[in-house]
Amino acid sequence: MNREFDLIDWIRSQQSARRPVLVPASDDLAVLENPGDEQMLLGVDQVLDGVHFDSSRHSPWEIGQKVMNRNLSDCAAMACLPVAALVSWALPRGTDPDYVKQLYTGMKQAAEVFGCQIIGGDTGVWDQKLAVTVTILGRSGGVTPVCRSGARVGDTIYVTGPLGGSILGRHLRFVPRIHHARHLATKYKLHAMIDISDGLSRDLAHICRESKVGVVLEAPLIPIHDDARQLPGDPLMHALHDGEDHELCLAAPDGIQEAIRIGTVVEGSGVWLKQNGRCHPLEKGGFEHVF
Amino acid sequence: MNREFDLIDWIRSQQSARRPVLVPASDDLAVLENPGDEQMLLGVDQVLDGVHFDSSRHSPWEIGQKVMNRNLSDCAAMACLPVAALVSWALPRGTDPDYVKQLYTGMKQAAEVFGCQIIGGDTGVWDQKLAVTVTILGRSGGVTPVCRSGARVGDTIYVTGPLGGSILGRHLRFVPRIHHARHLATKYKLHAMIDISDGLSRDLAHICRESKVGVVLEAPLIPIHDDARQLPGDPLMHALHDGEDHELCLAAPDGIQEAIRIGTVVEGSGVWLKQNGRCHPLEKGGFEHVF
Repeated sequence: MNREFDLIDWIRSQQSARRPVLVPASDDLAVLENPGDEQMLLGVDQVLDGVHFDSSRHSPWEIGQKVMNRNLSDCAAMACLPVAALVSWALPRGTDPDYVKQLYTGMKQAAEVFGCQIIGGDTGVWDQKLAVTVTILGRSGGVTPVCRSGARVGDTIYVTGPLGGSILGRHLRFVPRIHHARHLATKYKLHAMIDISDGLSRDLAHICRESKVGVVLEAPLIPIHDDARQLPGDPLMHALHDGEDHELCLAAPDGIQEAIRIGTVVEGSGVWLKQNGRCHPLEKGGFEHVF
Repeated sequence: MNREFDLIDWIRSQQSARRPVLVPASDDLAVLENPGDEQMLLGVDQVLDGVHFDSSRHSPWEIGQKVMNRNLSDCAAMACLPVAALVSWALPRGTDPDYVKQLYTGMKQAAEVFGCQIIGGDTGVWDQKLAVTVTILGRSGGVTPVCRSGARVGDTIYVTGPLGGSILGRHLRFVPRIHHARHLATKYKLHAMIDISDGLSRDLAHICRESKVGVVLEAPLIPIHDDARQLPGDPLMHALHDGEDHELCLAAPDGIQEAIRIGTVVEGSGVWLKQNGRCHPLEKGGFEHVF
C-alpha cells in the first residue's frame, strides 16, 4: 500500500480549500478567485539534503518548517501577506510514508501560522537525496510591496534582530518576520527591504546594487546574537556574514523605533564597515554555492 | 568566475519584465499586477534525472523544454492561458554554466511560444543529480477552467491525438495543447478535461473518480500512434497505458468535430474497455512511482 497515490490521498485529506481557493490540489492546477484590487507576489525556494539541511540529523518536520518558513520570509521581505503555497518534493526511493507526512505537516503548520494554504504540489521518487521546493503566492494587502531597489542616500539601515550563529539551530527554527514587516510598512515609509538569508553583508550588497547606493555600517551598532558568541572566531564577523538568520534588513528615513539602527545609506556602491574610526570595504561573506 | 551569482546575472539578463509583471525576478518575490476580472490558476511540476529524463542522453535544452511543456500542458488541461513561470533547479556540483544556460533557454523558449514569462527562480548546487522544478501561473482569460470533476453520464469521451510510444522521443518534444484546449472550450461546453501524463487508463481514472462516474472505452476507436507500433507488445496496450503523451482527454456532450471520440461516460465507477463485444475492467497501467 506504500504507493505514491495512497500518499497523495493522504495529502489531499489534509487540504480543505477555502477562499480564495476555488479548486484545490486535486486537479491539474489549483484555481483561485481574483484577489481584488491587489498586486500578486510569487517566488520559489528549495532546500536540498546536505546543503540546507542534513536528513541524518534533522527531522522531517523541521525540514518542512524550514522550507516553508524560507518562503514566508520572502513574503516578509516584501511586506506582503502569504496566500497560498505549492509544494514539490523529490523523495529518495524507499522513503517511509510517515516520513513524508511529517515533512508535509511541518510545512502545513508553518503556513497556517500566517493563514497560508497549501494548494498543490508534485511528488517524485528517485535514487538520490531529498529535495523540497516550495512556491509561495502573496498579496499586497493594502501595502505597496517593498523592493530592494528603493534605498536613498541619507536613509538609515535597520535590522529587526540580532544576527550570527544560526547554524547552531535557528536556521531550522526561525519565525518569518511577516507581522513585524507589515507593522513597519504600515507605520513608516520603507524604501527598501530584504530578508537575511545569505548573510547581512551579501544581502545588503543586493540592496546597494539594486538601489545604486553604498552603505556604511557602524560596527558597534551591529546586534550580535548569543549564538554567534558560542562559535569559534570573531562574533562580529559571524553577525556580518553568517546566513539564514532571516531577520529583515531595511532602508528608511531615520526615526523607526521598532528596529535596530546599524548604518547609513551613502553615495557610491558597496557595503562598508566603520570600526575604530576607520571605514573599510566589507568583503562579501555569507552563503554562496560554488560550482 | 563560474560562480552562482554570475550565472544568476546571466539569467536576469534573459528576463525583461512586461505587464502584468511589475517587479521581476531580481527581488525577493516577483510582483504582478492584478489580472482583472479573472481567476488565477497555479501548479507545479518537476523533472528528475533518471526518472523523467536521462542527462547522459538528453540535452539540457530538451530537458528544459520538457519541464516547461509539462507545466504548460497542465494549463491546456484546464483550458487556461499561461502567464508566468518560476524555475527552480538543484544542479550537480561542477555543472558547466553553459549547460545551465541551455537548460534555461529550453524552458524560456517553450514558455515564449505561449506568451509566458519566467519571473523568478531559485538555484541550488549539491552532490546529487539534476532536479528541475517549474511553477506555472495561469489566468482563466474568459473561459471557465475545465476541471476533472464535471463529467456526466451520457457524455462522450474524446482525445486530441494518437497515443502510445512517447518513450521513443515524443516525451521530450510534445507541444502543449493550449490552442486546441482554448478552441474546444470556447466553441463547446466541456464537462471535464485532463492531460495524459500518466497514461490514458490512469488519467481517465482520475476523471472517473473526481466526477463519480464510470467510462467505457471502445477498443477500435482508440487512436494508436505509429510509435506504439514500433515497440514490443500490443500497440493498443501502449496507447491505453503509456505515459507522457500530453494529449488531452475530455468529457463533453456528443458532437465535437475537432477531437477523436473514444468512449462514453456511464453510471458506476472505473474505466472499462469494450473489445470484441465484451466489456472488461481496464487495469490501471501507466506511470506510477513505487517506493
